[in-house]
Amino acid sequence: MILTVTLNTALDITYRVRSLRPHASHRVSEVTERPGGKGVNVARVLAALGHEVTVTGFTGGATGRVVQEKLAAVPGVVDALVPLSGATRRTVAVVDERTGDTTQLNEPGPTVTPTEWSAFQEAYESLLASASMVALCGSLPPGVPVGAYAGLIRTARSFGLPVLLDTSGEPLRRGVAARPDIIKPNADELAELTGSHDPLRATQDARRRGAGAVVASLGPEGLLAATREGRWRATPPTPTRGNPTGAGDAVVAGLLSAWTDHLPWPARLTRAIALSTATVLAPVAGEFDRGVYEELLGLVTVANETSAA
Amino acid sequence: MILTVTLNTALDITYRVRSLRPHASHRVSEVTERPGGKGVNVARVLAALGHEVTVTGFTGGATGRVVQEKLAAVPGVVDALVPLSGATRRTVAVVDERTGDTTQLNEPGPTVTPTEWSAFQEAYESLLASASMVALCGSLPPGVPVGAYAGLIRTARSFGLPVLLDTSGEPLRRGVAARPDIIKPNADELAELTGSHDPLRATQDARRRGAGAVVASLGPEGLLAATREGRWRATPPTPTRGNPTGAGDAVVAGLLSAWTDHLPWPARLTRAIALSTATVLAPVAGEFDRGVYEELLGLVTVANETSAA
Repeated sequence: MILTVTLNTALDITYRVRSLRPHASHRVSEVTERPGGKGVNVARVLAALGHEVTVTGFTGGATGRVVQEKLAAVPGVVDALVPLSGATRRTVAVVDERTGDTTQLNEPGPTVTPTEWSAFQEAYESLLASASMVALCGSLPPGVPVGAYAGLIRTARSFGLPVLLDTSGEPLRRGVAARPDIIKPNADELAELTGSHDPLRATQDARRRGAGAVVASLGPEGLLAATREGRWRATPPTPTRGNPTGAGDAVVAGLLSAWTDHLPWPARLTRAIALSTATVLAPVAGEFDRGVYEELLGLVTVANETSAA
Repeated sequence: MILTVTLNTALDITYRVRSLRPHASHRVSEVTERPGGKGVNVARVLAALGHEVTVTGFTGGATGRVVQEKLAAVPGVVDALVPLSGATRRTVAVVDERTGDTTQLNEPGPTVTPTEWSAFQEAYESLLASASMVALCGSLPPGVPVGAYAGLIRTARSFGLPVLLDTSGEPLRRGVAARPDIIKPNADELAELTGSHDPLRATQDARRRGAGAVVASLGPEGLLAATREGRWRATPPTPTRGNPTGAGDAVVAGLLSAWTDHLPWPARLTRAIALSTATVLAPVAGEFDRGVYEELLGLVTVANETSAA
């Protein structure tokens, strides 16, 4: 199975309001709740594609119970979350019905105690025994050491497992030094890691820092991949407008899915672009339309990127 | 005991953010949770004043469990909430640390089924047997008939119990016709009920519609009371600036507290003003400072209102 790690799981709440005005009172017309956090989103997409996937990370409190109840209702996702005494954070996305824009409020998450962090590391090791691949996703909750991902990468590598890392800031910088197989930064995260705003130069630099491959997600401009086997740029057939929520997680799921199917890089990037585009076009945030996805598989362009950094 | 009814209980969540900007992503720096809904707030103030108080209404889902856990930690409040299959709503208050202003997001609440509404009415009747006074507070959740408060008032009166009604719109209009002893509208609610924006005229009109007494809360201008015994205007010693959250509920608690102590109208209004002012001045939304409250008791002005409507 593919193991996805989400240390800062979330209960993702979406509110629809007629028009969001600061300092006013709003009646919420529609409330939806989903289990969230990047690794959980990745797992949901992988399960929808037919892969065996297990989610781990932390869960706690009333919000954690809701996350687990809702995870249990997702076919194909195995819940191996580790309990903690604090409560799983909420994220609130407020959708303005007039403009379609979203305002996001993210709780920081519960503080993880040293005992809870040790318990997680033990649970993680025992899960690795039956894993074929690991994805480490998202921010670190308070209390987890900033070098956490570096440690988790080394443990996975000691089991001979390939690892994808999708995070930002200092946890990304420390994680890259532990030599993950793939990182998937967006343009801002890549610039913060390397100091360069030139994606070509920056992806090369990130490889020199330790990443086996760098897949940079550049929004409407698609993906730029720098790998041991070569460099590619992958783009959707037409620029897409829609809700970008979950598009980055769909890229990660696409890469993992094609990687576990032993496909070469161009096919991995094709799957990643088709999934993320189908997610942006879906009416429900974070979901993807299977028909659109399958149609897009034949329409993605993957070109060799030849200019030197 | 005093019975407070909150059909649309809530888990009140407060988020602090550096500066709320629509369409941006915000890191919440502080999260606080409290059991909420007007009748729950009234009960908390009454219990702090030393009264025996029982809360009823509905509770359900993970949010309802949190409300009940937190209510159990409030000394002096007895929880007699009735279970329902939907989940208790959340309200989210987003406090902008830069301006101090609050943006409010209120979920609509769960839909109450006819069976659940019948179960509540039975529970209510059995609670009335040991009640000395009833307060019916706040909005109606979906599924509860718009004439609900009128029915609950008639039932309480059949037990010979005095009733205070604090709601708005059509539930207030229907409720007033069932002759509650006191209503406590704010200026907008009173104008909506009577069609008049002149508070003196409107309080008289609301009495003609069936209310035994009308206590209109006019914000910084204090309270205007029209009763069988006379008319009064009650004002704090100085205009107060602060957080108005819970000030209206503190007025209701002050009226009930002094009423249950058999005090005449001017003393009831004094207690209401002192409590609401102490609530506005408190650093925590909806709480009040006992020292400030006791000091204010000697400083409130209650004047006969003699001009004719």
